[in-house]
Amino acid sequence: MKLLGFFLGLTACLCADPLPSWNNTPVKQEIISFVDKVTDPKSPNYVPSAERIATFDNDGCLWSEKPVYFQLIFVFDQIRELAPEHPEWQTQEPYASILKGDYQSALSAKKEALLEAALVAHSSMTAEEFEQSARDWLDTAKHPQTGMLYREMVFQPMLELLAYLRANDFKTYIVSGGGIDFLRVFAEETYGIPPEQVVGTTLKAKYEVHAGKPVIIKEPEIALIDDQAGKPVGIYQFIGRRPIFAAGNSDGDFEMLEYTTSGEGARFGMLVHHTDAQREWAYDRDSHVGKLSRGLDEGPQRGWLIVDMQKDWGKVYPFE
Amino acid sequence: MKLLGFFLGLTACLCADPLPSWNNTPVKQEIISFVDKVTDPKSPNYVPSAERIATFDNDGCLWSEKPVYFQLIFVFDQIRELAPEHPEWQTQEPYASILKGDYQSALSAKKEALLEAALVAHSSMTAEEFEQSARDWLDTAKHPQTGMLYREMVFQPMLELLAYLRANDFKTYIVSGGGIDFLRVFAEETYGIPPEQVVGTTLKAKYEVHAGKPVIIKEPEIALIDDQAGKPVGIYQFIGRRPIFAAGNSDGDFEMLEYTTSGEGARFGMLVHHTDAQREWAYDRDSHVGKLSRGLDEGPQRGWLIVDMQKDWGKVYPFE
Repeated sequence: MKLLGFFLGLTACLCADPLPSWNNTPVKQEIISFVDKVTDPKSPNYVPSAERIATFDNDGCLWSEKPVYFQLIFVFDQIRELAPEHPEWQTQEPYASILKGDYQSALSAKKEALLEAALVAHSSMTAEEFEQSARDWLDTAKHPQTGMLYREMVFQPMLELLAYLRANDFKTYIVSGGGIDFLRVFAEETYGIPPEQVVGTTLKAKYEVHAGKPVIIKEPEIALIDDQAGKPVGIYQFIGRRPIFAAGNSDGDFEMLEYTTSGEGARFGMLVHHTDAQREWAYDRDSHVGKLSRGLDEGPQRGWLIVDMQKDWGKVYPFE
Repeated sequence: MKLLGFFLGLTACLCADPLPSWNNTPVKQEIISFVDKVTDPKSPNYVPSAERIATFDNDGCLWSEKPVYFQLIFVFDQIRELAPEHPEWQTQEPYASILKGDYQSALSAKKEALLEAALVAHSSMTAEEFEQSARDWLDTAKHPQTGMLYREMVFQPMLELLAYLRANDFKTYIVSGGGIDFLRVFAEETYGIPPEQVVGTTLKAKYEVHAGKPVIIKEPEIALIDDQAGKPVGIYQFIGRRPIFAAGNSDGDFEMLEYTTSGEGARFGMLVHHTDAQREWAYDRDSHVGKLSRGLDEGPQRGWLIVDMQKDWGKVYPFE
């Protein structure tokens, strides 16, 4: 009976682990300590639940971002679909390279030209039309290396972290450089984050009534680039409250973490460092997507947690 | 004992009324019927709680808006405080009239000039500075006619409606032509609506680090005018989900109600008609604030509920 009791106790203890895919490293303990102290009414670091705002970057933080941001692959796929209406694209960059399937050359185009291609692919249509096309793409397109659907390439430890924070009355948000409308198509089902808790790069929009039916038209003009210094601005405009917890993985998240962790009281900043070439990808200072350099240099002295994917994560993807 | 039982029963019944300041008119019954049918899992009109989004205009819908929008009085007060630094205002409209206390003339200035005055008063400062000045003003400034604080001039029946919807798992939002940052200062305490559920007219903003301290600077440029066709755009950008319930009081809310009530399934649109010159103000088609004309003409045939403040509300303000 004693032995049975021991095993039952062990099971209960394992079941109670809120972060089973995180290895038992100091990183996991730091996360749990933070949550314990801000949720304990007797702690000097207690934070009322209404103020427990946690913001997460998406690309490279909640899902992978290699070989390029997944939404960019969607843009390229859309460009190919639209090509028959645009014969001029055969000789115009980055379209010509995209149509040839030469993504490397396409990506070497000027940033403005790539942005324009993204606007061509993702605007001048109704919100419903965009949503449907994004849903169709997410339901069918496969990652070139893993063969998985893109929305299956999410990080199991981060799904657990989101759920753990919500179980402790945090409100979890995405604050991403990706398109807000694209994220909203899958964030609820994939991450448990409803549309109204997604902040992202936003296009201007207009309201019109077509044959008695109101529609929102996505316009080919940027309202907010939700990256770098645009992230605290997005947080201020959309949420109106400074987070107490922020997670990212690149220097595009630096200002979000700086803004979050410089507030008064207990604060938490976290950077996911891609160190696992075996199970995912290994990159940082020299990567063309998800470049992480300043964060590695300044993060530790700012008290930010650097998560080493290889050491700190027992599992990367749910399908492993 | 029978009599005591009767009285106890009566008390229980009165306590159970979720909308005690609404008279027992058909309007009250329509609200309750709608909530009953969308929350009953057995009803063909059932709506899952995640989709129960309710949006409310603020000026003239949740609080009064006479003699002018309260935020405009705040702008005028700020202009007076800033005047010593701007000697040129003595001869420049609308500033000269504002400084003379001649609001009627100030209001007759061009819309662009008034907007510019609002930008002068409410931008080029940090978010914290603005928040503090708005809080100070709301804590001290008194309404010229009632002598009450502005945030006391809220509508008791609407406070009950907000609480009733939330008790039925609705997420209540403000969607107002007023400034988003101004609204966020008092919406949580006054209406129980947290900052992240406030949508309003939004200025551009930038992020800077001043002497090691991150700040958000409000810029003198409009990002979104959250009025008329801007309301469904604001809803789309900030919430990302079409409401099933919308309440307003003026033609500035027409598009929000149109967008809300043209969705599939059960929908609710409501316009508060200011008909009570005794307890509040009576105005509609000819008013320079809160003009309601198209809504009165088209609302009923669109199935929108027109709330007659005089007949349908037993009480207007909480302090009555």
